[in-house]
Amino acid sequence: MDTSEFRRRGKEMVDYVADYLEGIEGRQVYPDVEPGYLRPLVPACAPEEPDTFEDIISDVEKIIMPGAASPACTELETVMMDWLGKMLELPEAFLAGGAGEGGGVIQGSASEATLVALLAARTKVIRRLQAASPELTPASIMDKLVAYSSDQAHSSVERAGLIGAVRLRAIPSDGNFAMRASALREALDRDKAAGLIPFFVVATLGTTSCCSFDNLLEVGPICAQEDLWLHIDAAYAGSAFICPEFRHLLNGVEFADSFNFNPHKWLLVNFDCSAMWVKKRTDLTGAFKLDPVYLKHSHQDSGLITDYRHWQIPLGRRFRSLKMWFVFRLYGVRGLQAYIRKHVQLAHEFESLVLQDPRFEICMKVTLGLVCFRLKGSNQVNEALLQRINDAKKIHLVPCHLRDKFVLRLAICSRTTESAHVRLAWAHIRELAGAVLEAERAAETKS
Amino acid sequence: MDTSEFRRRGKEMVDYVADYLEGIEGRQVYPDVEPGYLRPLVPACAPEEPDTFEDIISDVEKIIMPGAASPACTELETVMMDWLGKMLELPEAFLAGGAGEGGGVIQGSASEATLVALLAARTKVIRRLQAASPELTPASIMDKLVAYSSDQAHSSVERAGLIGAVRLRAIPSDGNFAMRASALREALDRDKAAGLIPFFVVATLGTTSCCSFDNLLEVGPICAQEDLWLHIDAAYAGSAFICPEFRHLLNGVEFADSFNFNPHKWLLVNFDCSAMWVKKRTDLTGAFKLDPVYLKHSHQDSGLITDYRHWQIPLGRRFRSLKMWFVFRLYGVRGLQAYIRKHVQLAHEFESLVLQDPRFEICMKVTLGLVCFRLKGSNQVNEALLQRINDAKKIHLVPCHLRDKFVLRLAICSRTTESAHVRLAWAHIRELAGAVLEAERAAETKS
Repeated sequence: MDTSEFRRRGKEMVDYVADYLEGIEGRQVYPDVEPGYLRPLVPACAPEEPDTFEDIISDVEKIIMPGAASPACTELETVMMDWLGKMLELPEAFLAGGAGEGGGVIQGSASEATLVALLAARTKVIRRLQAASPELTPASIMDKLVAYSSDQAHSSVERAGLIGAVRLRAIPSDGNFAMRASALREALDRDKAAGLIPFFVVATLGTTSCCSFDNLLEVGPICAQEDLWLHIDAAYAGSAFICPEFRHLLNGVEFADSFNFNPHKWLLVNFDCSAMWVKKRTDLTGAFKLDPVYLKHSHQDSGLITDYRHWQIPLGRRFRSLKMWFVFRLYGVRGLQAYIRKHVQLAHEFESLVLQDPRFEICMKVTLGLVCFRLKGSNQVNEALLQRINDAKKIHLVPCHLRDKFVLRLAICSRTTESAHVRLAWAHIRELAGAVLEAERAAETKS
Repeated sequence: MDTSEFRRRGKEMVDYVADYLEGIEGRQVYPDVEPGYLRPLVPACAPEEPDTFEDIISDVEKIIMPGAASPACTELETVMMDWLGKMLELPEAFLAGGAGEGGGVIQGSASEATLVALLAARTKVIRRLQAASPELTPASIMDKLVAYSSDQAHSSVERAGLIGAVRLRAIPSDGNFAMRASALREALDRDKAAGLIPFFVVATLGTTSCCSFDNLLEVGPICAQEDLWLHIDAAYAGSAFICPEFRHLLNGVEFADSFNFNPHKWLLVNFDCSAMWVKKRTDLTGAFKLDPVYLKHSHQDSGLITDYRHWQIPLGRRFRSLKMWFVFRLYGVRGLQAYIRKHVQLAHEFESLVLQDPRFEICMKVTLGLVCFRLKGSNQVNEALLQRINDAKKIHLVPCHLRDKFVLRLAICSRTTESAHVRLAWAHIRELAGAVLEAERAAETKS
């Protein structure tokens, strides 16, 4: 949608809202529809090619408005999470509309998804151990629980451990910044020998620092063997898995108990929209379910409906699946794939520019839209370069440390980024690098 | 703002967004402002009388756009939470812009606020006990921790206890459904005698079931004496405290460590916007603070800025304070007070209608916008009445249990509710009650 269409459609939507408000007294306070009404009205998969805006708005009137906020809000979310799961070719077990026991839910952020997964895993292991040894208190079990993630995992994993009050072990990653079988196995064996209880593993696909990928095909079988909850955090990289050529990065997801990524990061859905799937719905609801009278409703024991309040930390919810519905239909799967591919291609374009300049090095294989690079030389000179870049305020880079190296990161992440921007950014960086290196030479000469 | 102004302003905003997108390449990627730039540009308090929409939009351009998303998003939130705190006449200690160590943050829901408070209290008590006895493990302390709330508290309090993995004790409320000193004191003494460690009390102002108020002036001093974290959950009722005639309901807040209510419930701010204040900022940040390299920034150790990521569960945040800024300015404090007063007055109007019908009884003193009522008689007949009301779909009521009584609840909560709606609702309820009672008589005659 270009800006001029945005102006027109935006104004139509303002009128739609105003008309709704003016006519609200003519509407029922509660919908006539029955649980499950929505799924048959919506296709089983996202469209390959874009739908028109008119089609979508006409479906809002036909499909959403008769279901009002409840149950439309819940039911569209379940179906959109199935659409997205199918785009990623998630195993059937993760989908709500199939034969399995799984399903998807929109969380606010990957931090919350990791926390919710950890809490569900904690409840599950406590119940299992208490069933075998009823004399054990939850605290005596928690005292021995250990969660694991790579030393490259996002800080929110450590935070989930803090909140969940369990030990978190950082597994040393390998030379490609990936968690591998050997290091995980070693930590598990050491902890079990010390009388501790491993229960939860977070594997990261596309780490924040350098977009590295934990080795799922090694880590997954260990989790299955040891009965550990495996959560996959693909917050950034997950969007790419809608492209067949990147889907192999998700191989091993069949071993996971829960999987999460953020469509708000790289799939054109506005913040917040963090997509989380579990293989077994009751694992989540078992950890959180409480049913006071004022939240009871006539369908809750029917098994027909999903009560997302048992899937998350907050009670209240927004109608976030509407954003997914609009975006998936306005772009179509092909449009979304083209968007991902363009960003990856722009990242490779930047990579090849960097490689042409012998003063620079690429620090990590470029897989998706992130390029990790630096000036060959000291951390100090790279810190000076970053300072100049960010002071100039033409582009903005966020650095990282890879082992002992200070590294610059160029991330392609805007809807409007084109090749010309990448080339401009590189020319700008080269110019500032020249100035930094000259200043360094001058300082050396002087000393 | 009436609907025709909404149409006009809404369309202007669509153009504003479109213009922004079209001109985005001309903007810096990073703002020039320094931390703390915003507060001097904004008045110290919310306006008494409404500002015009033009004034607000012109301030967006002057005050927000130069500060872009960061730091404007954070700084406006801090100032708006001070505005709102002043409207409620919160003690100075809870404000960020004064001499104290406190401040406010927008959470997504009261559930999250309760959880965040409980986690902060848990960290604080663990650290205090470990400082005295370094051999204690966190788990051995958590095994003995006890949190308390009234038996009328919202289910989210129990949920926070589950997530935080601590015992939660429900204190029996008195005849007015309030938590009182004697029952709390009794539970504390019993638990301490059993070797347990009380650490956290949630007092509710305006319970979900019947809008009862825990006795803060009794509970507060006990918490102070026993060094317990006192959290006040005023999710619904809090908005009313902006009116001087309701402010006395908040007396005792000076004893609290944290206080929360939901402007999205009753202060015309759209969902989600849950306002939380703490007396000591470092109590929250101490519980959550982690600083990976990719989240470091040049001002973080300056003491000048607020990093709200340390105040909450998620990492990412939306610019929710804009909603507060617009609403507070478009209504002015007087407009917001008038809105609350009108709802309370409509609740009393409904109450007086109920009292005129000898078949009905009022089950709880009407303090704010909630009326708890029922047919004199069995729970069964009231359940039958509720069923008829909700089946008719003209109004929607959510029931509760007060002790052994099944009670209907009429809540005044829409922006557009007028006296005529209240009278229509009552006529409708009376008519259905007549039918229910007749059906009951017929069944009795038959049996």
